[in-house]
Amino acid sequence: LIKEMANNTPQLLKGFRDFGPGEMTARQIMLAKIRAAFERFGFQPMETPALEYAQTLLGKYGAEEKLMYRFSDAGGREVAMRYDLTVPLARFYAQRENELPRPFKRYCIGPVWRAENTQKGRFREFYQCDVDCIGSKSPLSDAEAVAAVAAAIADLGVEKIKIRINNRKLTGGILAMLGVSPEQSIAVIRLMDKLDKQPEKTVWAEMVSAGIKDDQVAKLFGYLNKKVSGPEDVRSLFSEVLTENSLIGEGVGELCGVLETLEFLDVKNVVVDLALARGLDYYTGLVCEIVLPELPAYGSIAGGGRYDNLIGTAGGLGKPVPAVGMSIGIDRLIAALDELGLATGMPSDGVLIFNLDERFLKTYLTVSRELRKAEINSEVYYQTEGMDKQFRYAEKKNIGLAVIVGEDEVKKCLVTLKNLTTRKQRQVKAERLITEVLSELQ
Amino acid sequence: LIKEMANNTPQLLKGFRDFGPGEMTARQIMLAKIRAAFERFGFQPMETPALEYAQTLLGKYGAEEKLMYRFSDAGGREVAMRYDLTVPLARFYAQRENELPRPFKRYCIGPVWRAENTQKGRFREFYQCDVDCIGSKSPLSDAEAVAAVAAAIADLGVEKIKIRINNRKLTGGILAMLGVSPEQSIAVIRLMDKLDKQPEKTVWAEMVSAGIKDDQVAKLFGYLNKKVSGPEDVRSLFSEVLTENSLIGEGVGELCGVLETLEFLDVKNVVVDLALARGLDYYTGLVCEIVLPELPAYGSIAGGGRYDNLIGTAGGLGKPVPAVGMSIGIDRLIAALDELGLATGMPSDGVLIFNLDERFLKTYLTVSRELRKAEINSEVYYQTEGMDKQFRYAEKKNIGLAVIVGEDEVKKCLVTLKNLTTRKQRQVKAERLITEVLSELQ
Repeated sequence: LIKEMANNTPQLLKGFRDFGPGEMTARQIMLAKIRAAFERFGFQPMETPALEYAQTLLGKYGAEEKLMYRFSDAGGREVAMRYDLTVPLARFYAQRENELPRPFKRYCIGPVWRAENTQKGRFREFYQCDVDCIGSKSPLSDAEAVAAVAAAIADLGVEKIKIRINNRKLTGGILAMLGVSPEQSIAVIRLMDKLDKQPEKTVWAEMVSAGIKDDQVAKLFGYLNKKVSGPEDVRSLFSEVLTENSLIGEGVGELCGVLETLEFLDVKNVVVDLALARGLDYYTGLVCEIVLPELPAYGSIAGGGRYDNLIGTAGGLGKPVPAVGMSIGIDRLIAALDELGLATGMPSDGVLIFNLDERFLKTYLTVSRELRKAEINSEVYYQTEGMDKQFRYAEKKNIGLAVIVGEDEVKKCLVTLKNLTTRKQRQVKAERLITEVLSELQ
Repeated sequence: LIKEMANNTPQLLKGFRDFGPGEMTARQIMLAKIRAAFERFGFQPMETPALEYAQTLLGKYGAEEKLMYRFSDAGGREVAMRYDLTVPLARFYAQRENELPRPFKRYCIGPVWRAENTQKGRFREFYQCDVDCIGSKSPLSDAEAVAAVAAAIADLGVEKIKIRINNRKLTGGILAMLGVSPEQSIAVIRLMDKLDKQPEKTVWAEMVSAGIKDDQVAKLFGYLNKKVSGPEDVRSLFSEVLTENSLIGEGVGELCGVLETLEFLDVKNVVVDLALARGLDYYTGLVCEIVLPELPAYGSIAGGGRYDNLIGTAGGLGKPVPAVGMSIGIDRLIAALDELGLATGMPSDGVLIFNLDERFLKTYLTVSRELRKAEINSEVYYQTEGMDKQFRYAEKKNIGLAVIVGEDEVKKCLVTLKNLTTRKQRQVKAERLITEVLSELQ
């Protein structure tokens, strides 16, 4: 068996990925931009461990729970790998409530693990990127979470986005007004989300099979299909039914509050979509989805909403804690950036000092040192070898510039610079090295 | 049981840590500096998954292997959580050898998991931070790994370090020359490492109990205690025994090659320590440790060496692949920075716009927008509330500056700035806001 193992080339687990230098560099640049955008809005970073007591995570994810990586550790504890970033946040918040600023505005970017069906193109390890505000009911906290995510996406170069928003209280209020029971509402809300992908007829039929009467569906669709843009539209649409039940009034108030705050924050491309529900049961107010109109097939690249019960329940606090959050689907966003021609890739960067003559090693190393002092990434090729090999090395690493110093250059105190993007080369005086390298790398 | 679970406040697992905003900000700043230092030397980032086939990791870590987090996943695969960053690198390299630049210079920063005894103050999830060069035997690759780590530590503000280096071939050669058998050598090398912490007498006695004769130990200590500084010292010390066996000659050659290259790279504070062994069996050439002379109790904060066999074996390549790497002990380094007064902490940063009057919300949000456009982190307090509460919020978040706009300011087109570090406040013209905020935050 040991022999057999030694002969097997180790493999990556199905559904897991390596990130080589190219992908990793691109991801780091992207994540740095997202982090900076979140921090501009006053969100601060935090991190929780990869493992939690299984008990902390169980009962929080419904039927999906079976996808959790769970096991007993060597000490007999039932543990589970992080399944999302929100339930650990609840545990963290419950343990530190008194020392944290209130509201607590945090962001968190990290991998989560789910034993997904890989046939569907899903990964078993993927990054989540969440921004949340815990402890405030203010519409400003809703609007800011949306604005921070919109700013992050804009900073990545995406110009055309559509921000769809709705309010769960309003949805609940409409359903209650139409006489749909709370039990039926859960099914209806899930079916509403399908209106995006399926013809109205199909969804209508499914609602009827779920026990909703035809005239209830008709009235519901009457609302869902209304074109609504600003807070005025929302108010006028519901003006006559505002007191039908408390949910409608509250929902309209919250939705308009968020819309107005988003306007003050100069967030563009916001549309109200009364059919937007977002299946998850835990939303209690705002729901939001960001889509790319140019790439409808991608679905939403970010989404979230208000969830005023989850933190208190999952954190075992025995009281509701208001919370709102948005999450960016990093993998989907990267794929979208790629398709839009906005992916950073591995930018051409840095300098390779060719290693042509052993006698000049000290010179090569001195040049690399001077470049590094000027904060220019630079390295000397490892051994004297043919120019071809050294060029190929530079190409594989996407290095921007070659510095070539041979006998001739040394004698004349010159340095040859070869721009590896334009393929042009020129000789410069050794004392002007830094200046010339900087101008080539610009 | 369900009731009992609901009543329990979820807890963090023993040996695991949360990083709140303060710690996390400090860690991000630190890791960004380390990354930048590595990239200046041409190392590129990569990442492998948290889970691997258990078979990939088993048999690579000796007796410590029992600390590995292993389990069967839902598909019946035996999997294990990442135990270090080196064995996954071997698997990655084996799978991509042909597409990677050669040599492959990578760095990797990420958590690893070990079920350590937490009584010893060890964590079960901790970050490793490795820089490695795969595929070159050049002394430049050894020197560069050391130089990159030294540069990273210097960039964190640490001025006094000591870089101890030695060569495993040389150690092996000395032991062979003294007639110590290869089997005994493993024990002797482990005991040599203890010379740092224990009196010579104790180590001497332990060597004798390991079967080494008194006169062998005496001769060995004769070498280990020699003061050696530069390559000349090394050459003269071994000049008469250079041909005793091939290991001594090779070891001296490699050690001197690395010393000279480190000199060319202007790396200071390098000392040869012939007693340095670094227990791990897999080192085959250079061994290196970086210590802080001001904090001897911390032991080494970085270390590594050449390991020409591991990549080929662990990657199942059936051939040796030369490799050299250094690793920074992030947790130990952070603790050391703290003790040296060099920890970044959470820098005072950003602006809080006080929320004093609902009528001015639009003004507050416009101010925050303008600040953000100028890349200044800023936020509006969530609701109108007493100044005290808003100051306390700013303090908890370590915000640098308060922007206060009340009725009086609005009338006069003024803005009050209160520097939260100096506690000084002044009024400025609204149109000079950005300039004045930038000057306060400097």
